[in-house]
Amino acid sequence: MVRRNDQRRAALVDAAIEVLAREGARGMTFRAVDTEAGVPVGTASNYFASRDDLFTQAGARVYERLRPDEATVARHRTAARDRETYVELMRELVGRVSSFRTGYLALLELRLEATRRPALRKVLTERVRADVDANIAHHEESGLPGDAMAVKLLILALNWLIVEQLTLPDVFTEAERERLVTAAVERIVTAEDTP
Amino acid sequence: MVRRNDQRRAALVDAAIEVLAREGARGMTFRAVDTEAGVPVGTASNYFASRDDLFTQAGARVYERLRPDEATVARHRTAARDRETYVELMRELVGRVSSFRTGYLALLELRLEATRRPALRKVLTERVRADVDANIAHHEESGLPGDAMAVKLLILALNWLIVEQLTLPDVFTEAERERLVTAAVERIVTAEDTP
Repeated sequence: MVRRNDQRRAALVDAAIEVLAREGARGMTFRAVDTEAGVPVGTASNYFASRDDLFTQAGARVYERLRPDEATVARHRTAARDRETYVELMRELVGRVSSFRTGYLALLELRLEATRRPALRKVLTERVRADVDANIAHHEESGLPGDAMAVKLLILALNWLIVEQLTLPDVFTEAERERLVTAAVERIVTAEDTP
Repeated sequence: MVRRNDQRRAALVDAAIEVLAREGARGMTFRAVDTEAGVPVGTASNYFASRDDLFTQAGARVYERLRPDEATVARHRTAARDRETYVELMRELVGRVSSFRTGYLALLELRLEATRRPALRKVLTERVRADVDANIAHHEESGLPGDAMAVKLLILALNWLIVEQLTLPDVFTEAERERLVTAAVERIVTAEDTP
């Protein structure tokens, strides 16, 4: 019974992500989530204490679904530790994040909603900071060139590149976006920092 | 009479920016804008053909209000053409944009709304691309070091830094944000491109 409840809960959280992306934070009501998940009205309100609770769980779930799969992780483990690999990794990252379009748009909606909800802001702040720190730690273990500052600068540049692609996809062409990813790594990951 | 109408229109557009930032795109109704502007209900609907029209004008107005003032432009004109000046300019830019908090948040709301409104997406795409091109042209005239790629990479990195500051201000400390601006210029504006 517990497992079935867990599956139902996960399906509701996934439905909340779709509603957030499509209707915005204001449109993410329990009723809209029930409809999206195809469950009886009243179901979501049995699973989540409040909209804040559902916002928080939707945010956490996007991060969970954005993790690379086993095959990707294994491929990275055997690649050379140079800037070419770094470029490949960042291309793969941008592709992975932007292909979960509704998840990334839902995160942007949550960020804007966080300006109105202190509880959500607190949880998202901890989540995003933990993600920055995990990226830095992961980089240090990886043996790839560059320092923590490069990791943070790449997070900045690539996030906005993804915002641009998902909200106004014709501002940059696809070729321009590819050149931007390559140039970002080549300039930000400076040769002096190469171990 | 024309002038008075222009002032009234500008006041309504400014009110729309505040409503967008506070309530989100869904909350930006003609009625909410009338209330925010302190004018009789029905006024906004006399000035704007549709919500799309008001969204578009609000976006254009944010860009207009983000322009540097005369004193800032004059100060830039006399500064040395080196990377230190570039860092100062980018600090000033980040400070100027993030201090118009509601304007920047309104632009983010408009970007998300553009995923749902093709007409808004078209207008915003043209506006944002024109802004990128204007930044590149302005840089080329300025005699500052660096190339067009550097201008675009700085636009990416600094936009997300502003998103971070305005939506989740505790992810980075103020000192960390300052170091990020400095490092972004120092790494992205490469020495080889210095004219």
